[in-house]
Amino acid sequence: MRVAVIGTGLIGTSVALALRQHGTAVWLADADAEAARLAAHLGAGEPLPDDAPGTGRADVALIAVPPSAVAATLAAAQARGLAACYTDVASVKQLPVAAARALGCDMTSYVPGHPLAGREKHGPAAARADLFLGRTWALCPGPEASEQAIATVTDLVRACGAVPVRTDAAAHDRWVAVVSHAPHLVAAAMAARLAAAPPEALDLAGPGLRDVTRIAAGDTGLWTQILAANAEPVAEVLASVAADLAEAAWMLTDGDPKSVATLLEVGQAGVARIPGKHGGEPREFTAVQVVIRDQPGELSRLFGAAGAAGVNIEDVRIEHSPGLPVGVAELSVRPAEAATLLAALEAGGWPVRR
Amino acid sequence: MRVAVIGTGLIGTSVALALRQHGTAVWLADADAEAARLAAHLGAGEPLPDDAPGTGRADVALIAVPPSAVAATLAAAQARGLAACYTDVASVKQLPVAAARALGCDMTSYVPGHPLAGREKHGPAAARADLFLGRTWALCPGPEASEQAIATVTDLVRACGAVPVRTDAAAHDRWVAVVSHAPHLVAAAMAARLAAAPPEALDLAGPGLRDVTRIAAGDTGLWTQILAANAEPVAEVLASVAADLAEAAWMLTDGDPKSVATLLEVGQAGVARIPGKHGGEPREFTAVQVVIRDQPGELSRLFGAAGAAGVNIEDVRIEHSPGLPVGVAELSVRPAEAATLLAALEAGGWPVRR
Repeated sequence: MRVAVIGTGLIGTSVALALRQHGTAVWLADADAEAARLAAHLGAGEPLPDDAPGTGRADVALIAVPPSAVAATLAAAQARGLAACYTDVASVKQLPVAAARALGCDMTSYVPGHPLAGREKHGPAAARADLFLGRTWALCPGPEASEQAIATVTDLVRACGAVPVRTDAAAHDRWVAVVSHAPHLVAAAMAARLAAAPPEALDLAGPGLRDVTRIAAGDTGLWTQILAANAEPVAEVLASVAADLAEAAWMLTDGDPKSVATLLEVGQAGVARIPGKHGGEPREFTAVQVVIRDQPGELSRLFGAAGAAGVNIEDVRIEHSPGLPVGVAELSVRPAEAATLLAALEAGGWPVRR
Repeated sequence: MRVAVIGTGLIGTSVALALRQHGTAVWLADADAEAARLAAHLGAGEPLPDDAPGTGRADVALIAVPPSAVAATLAAAQARGLAACYTDVASVKQLPVAAARALGCDMTSYVPGHPLAGREKHGPAAARADLFLGRTWALCPGPEASEQAIATVTDLVRACGAVPVRTDAAAHDRWVAVVSHAPHLVAAAMAARLAAAPPEALDLAGPGLRDVTRIAAGDTGLWTQILAANAEPVAEVLASVAADLAEAAWMLTDGDPKSVATLLEVGQAGVARIPGKHGGEPREFTAVQVVIRDQPGELSRLFGAAGAAGVNIEDVRIEHSPGLPVGVAELSVRPAEAATLLAALEAGGWPVRR
């Protein structure tokens, strides 16, 4: 399999790094030659060769450019015959699909996509091969899309460790307005209160504020494009959030302040519906908890025991308060290796909990 | 030092666990005897003895009950002569202070407080000794408070690993409206959209949505009390967030959609002002990054080298994608030990980056 990645920003380079792990050959291109070079240095692939006879073509071209540039990039790639099929990663889907039709693109080989993953940092240096592990990746093939193209793009998504979800472009845009686009503006509107707040107020900031506003640190140019391209569904969600907040403000000052309990309860019910809300851990690992003493050499002995048993520890988190004589190490391993690790640790005298 | 903790929920039990690490004697009490018993089983201290002659009194009593119950609990503790001085942990400060005055409490021995830390889970089982590490803890002594009482409560805050910040009750309530109380309702209003959203929409949820809405999972009864007790300042913030969101909705549908860029930019500037926004790591540790190979025994060798150099690794995070031949381990150590660790790792042949 050979993949051409057009646009080596955060998403394009992360896809390339993920594919390289499977030995997939990756060509890299970006309007900014520096960005493509950096991605290549990171091991994401090789520069896309010039359009010379005999260079062959890719199985898939992944177009990872801003939403408004997708259609023109697709048209150029198809004109060149770059790949057997094409996908993109834009956060809106109706706009690039309509633009591609308007430009006369071949819609049989184009399978629009959108990985629900990202970071506040951008550019190839922020790329991570594991960015898509366990994440949803929407695919919105139109009625003309060939089964072959859909199958190839689905394989690419799975190779990145993501979970493909089929939907249509209109439904996609309506749903991401609720779960992604409106939340971005809500975070921004809350964070905007901090721009003019006195330093004394910010001294009292805790982790909750950081979480609520984190995504508002994202690329404002890209997000303006995304929001403008999904204006109606986003506006509908924002208007209802604004109405709830205005009503809560009224209850607090002019109504019964305790009535805000209703909004809190509906909000709590909403949070509970988010799948994998305690997530972040790739789902393919099993966590083994072991109680350890807080002293030099203790972790060495622990990892020594795991290594001697032939178990590769994929990740470890330690929960312990400085000064306490014991802590808990949570070891992530492949499920098939968990029993071996548990036996090895118990044989070594560690109290374990799966 | 002896501390009495009245109210063994998340905050009270976490304070008790933090103090026990320094060998401080802790008495525990709760209106719910089960909660106090569980806290004692967790090693948080011993049951508060009955009010018998000769039991002595505590240096500080920490009152960790809901805001509306603080004053009555303080009055009862003072009537009994439980401690030399008193503090509380309520998220609002004017309400308990005014109520304490109204009940005729001794204000010379009372130093109102508020640790800016918490979790979505509650109750003693969710307590963590490290909950306050590096967190701000507001102290709002009134004009009558004795220097002795202020000094003792400040020592308690420092013993929990927190950073004491002096302010007055009115300023405290105004600032936390911006950085804590309003964000809670904003998160709830966004999360409320998810309560009735179709499952297909929730299938597309990503980590950004989880962060924006996380705090909305908190205890609704407690938060209703907090918000009602700080109604005016919270309402003011909510009204301006609501106005911004209503305007953004209007721009998207009836104005120039690209105008939302302004709100995004102000929001980005606001996020940038949050201290330690990449935080979560206790500030007293230094991170050492080392490139490791992904194979059994590699971490064992690494921790062996650290242990042999006498360095205690406080925490470790591993960033590596399964299948990649190398990863990065980020080791947290006391700053004084970082140079020793770096030298030991370099001597062992590992590429390091501080």
